[in-house]
Amino acid sequence: EIGIRDYQTSHRTVQLPGLINIAAFVPGLVTRDSDDLQRVTRASVAAGFSMIRVMPVGKDGSISDVKSLKVAQQNGKRGPYCDFNLSITATSDNAHQISHTAGEVGSLFIPFNHLSDNISKVAAVEAHFDAWPTHKPIITDARTTDLASILLLASLHSRRIHVTAVTTKDDIKLIALSKAKGLKVTCDVSVYALYLSQDDYPGCSLLPTAEDQAALWENLGVIDVFSVGSLPYQLSHFLGKPADATVGISEAVPLLLTSVAEGKLTVDDVRLRLHDNPRDIFELHDQVGAGVEIEVGREYTLKPETWSPFGGRSLKASVQRVTFQDQVVCLDGAVLQVPPRGADMSTHGALPPTSATVS
Amino acid sequence: EIGIRDYQTSHRTVQLPGLINIAAFVPGLVTRDSDDLQRVTRASVAAGFSMIRVMPVGKDGSISDVKSLKVAQQNGKRGPYCDFNLSITATSDNAHQISHTAGEVGSLFIPFNHLSDNISKVAAVEAHFDAWPTHKPIITDARTTDLASILLLASLHSRRIHVTAVTTKDDIKLIALSKAKGLKVTCDVSVYALYLSQDDYPGCSLLPTAEDQAALWENLGVIDVFSVGSLPYQLSHFLGKPADATVGISEAVPLLLTSVAEGKLTVDDVRLRLHDNPRDIFELHDQVGAGVEIEVGREYTLKPETWSPFGGRSLKASVQRVTFQDQVVCLDGAVLQVPPRGADMSTHGALPPTSATVS
Ligand SMILES: [Zn+2]
Ligand SMILES: [Zn+2]
Ligand SMILES: [Zn+2]
Ligand SMILES: [Zn+2]
Ligand SMILES: [Zn+2]
Ligand SMILES: [Zn+2]
Ligand SMILES: [Zn+2]
Ligand SMILES: [Zn+2]
Repeated sequence: EIGIRDYQTSHRTVQLPGLINIAAFVPGLVTRDSDDLQRVTRASVAAGFSMIRVMPVGKDGSISDVKSLKVAQQNGKRGPYCDFNLSITATSDNAHQISHTAGEVGSLFIPFNHLSDNISKVAAVEAHFDAWPTHKPIITDARTTDLASILLLASLHSRRIHVTAVTTKDDIKLIALSKAKGLKVTCDVSVYALYLSQDDYPGCSLLPTAEDQAALWENLGVIDVFSVGSLPYQLSHFLGKPADATVGISEAVPLLLTSVAEGKLTVDDVRLRLHDNPRDIFELHDQVGAGVEIEVGREYTLKPETWSPFGGRSLKASVQRVTFQDQVVCLDGAVLQVPPRGADMSTHGALPPTSATVS
Repeated sequence: EIGIRDYQTSHRTVQLPGLINIAAFVPGLVTRDSDDLQRVTRASVAAGFSMIRVMPVGKDGSISDVKSLKVAQQNGKRGPYCDFNLSITATSDNAHQISHTAGEVGSLFIPFNHLSDNISKVAAVEAHFDAWPTHKPIITDARTTDLASILLLASLHSRRIHVTAVTTKDDIKLIALSKAKGLKVTCDVSVYALYLSQDDYPGCSLLPTAEDQAALWENLGVIDVFSVGSLPYQLSHFLGKPADATVGISEAVPLLLTSVAEGKLTVDDVRLRLHDNPRDIFELHDQVGAGVEIEVGREYTLKPETWSPFGGRSLKASVQRVTFQDQVVCLDGAVLQVPPRGADMSTHGALPPTSATVS
């Protein structure tokens, strides 16, 4: 009888709408003639993501003014395989500049922990809050006291704010507390941070400690969104592995749906955090004709073509079919020979909403 | 005619109620058998302060548990010349301990910039907010992002918070913004910070820059209280001068009333910040029978007995008579031969107010 139950291990097919990665890292984003953006969109659509929000921070620079925005926009014309939007990075002194780009980007990113020119002065952040249109999203990667600072400013200005890539118990608790007290704050956690900890890579402060990771899982209700983020790329770099622009994208959905197979998450938990909430929080267009079919329950060993920390790990879910604009673009993990049909959606929602309905 | 006007330079006598120093630094506070507290009360009453709130941080330790509180209480029994109250310092792990002392102290001090064991984790501060009785004051010396953190926590918990010894433009602006948005925050500025800057002592980061100082004066309406604070003692130490426990006390009122003589402040500005606001913010007992007479308008050169950065400076106000418990205790700067009659008022207001009236 045990044998029969093993044999019958329930395979099932889960249908999800086209998924959204709200934090896609593109190393060559502002590098002239880079095809990283195209490659990331291709890997994304193959992994079930029909829309990605590109982080405005690349390996060699960030989108922080009209000039760098132009370079990224140009790179976005090389035939993207899924829809995307661009954002702009706040720097210590570009509060005025960014107000000119608001119509051309999806959001403002206020970085505290990314590469060059992190913002640290409350005054500088305050200037950005005042310069950025009130209806457009603001995202930050602030931590600990920086996080508290920016939450205070958001509170004082009655602004919504999204905290990206939360990794610690303290931060998720501060966000939980802020939500409980009525602050309009949302957050995401990188998929890698849910499945890798410093127990796996001792001394790697990019990852949560095992205790922090446990706190993230315990506070699932506080986590609005799951993202890919820059963590996979940074981890590759930290470990001295060849850091491919597409690292971390293909495992995201299989990892999360494996947790569904194991009863740690429900399909609704995932749909909410990879589609509904991202769409609502960032006021994204709804992608009619986009969808993903995932087989859940059949166990296999991950053997990725390029390096992944999950190579060799046993998974129980795989993306079988991806539809984009009513066309099947991916079958059993392979991207079909179809022309790239993604678009730069950065200007969607550029104008303040004319009614209270969410578009 | 010019001669006559010079001759007639208006001398006048200003009457003020017994003044309050909300931040008195006592070096030997938790040093067994120290007479620093007595000496500070004596210098205070001579300077017009009939009530002092003793900072819970001394030179060799702080009041942070029942044991250190007992030592300070014992030192407080050596015949204080004015009323005083004690407070307790938050440390990284004494949130529970302090809840046991709440009935015996005037307030909780959350230090970010004082000596040992500064608190930096939002979580630790959060624990103190939860452990400390809601009706009792909380004071902090937090700066920049730490200040923003604690203002956020105060906002989330709907708690009043007092920020002590503000010195920078950024901080006073953040407090101004917070007040404007309805946060229950109050603040004080050290008298030394109003009259000394880094232009006087280059490289001394204890003092505001000239620009910061100008911002403090411009934001006078945001400053609820003037204090003596630990700045005079720290400055002495920084300059390698003999740091007397009483440094900075005697100049406070003459400096402020000199600004009155020069038209930079009004008498009401001073009364509000050295009596009314301190009393209301910290729910202090009203001292009937305490008062100060100050001669304003006669110019003289300050020649202090112990070192002061204001030695040799031209002032236009002096404390002439101090009354305490309806008895004259000080005439023309000299303390009269009277028995010390101050009291430890720490338990005043220990119980939650029974009505909405301010006592
Ligand atoms: Zn302009
Ligand atoms: Zn503002
Ligand atoms: Zn959709
Ligand atoms: Zn829309
Ligand atoms: Zn206890
Ligand atoms: Zn709390
Ligand atoms: Zn009074
Ligand atoms: Zn009272």
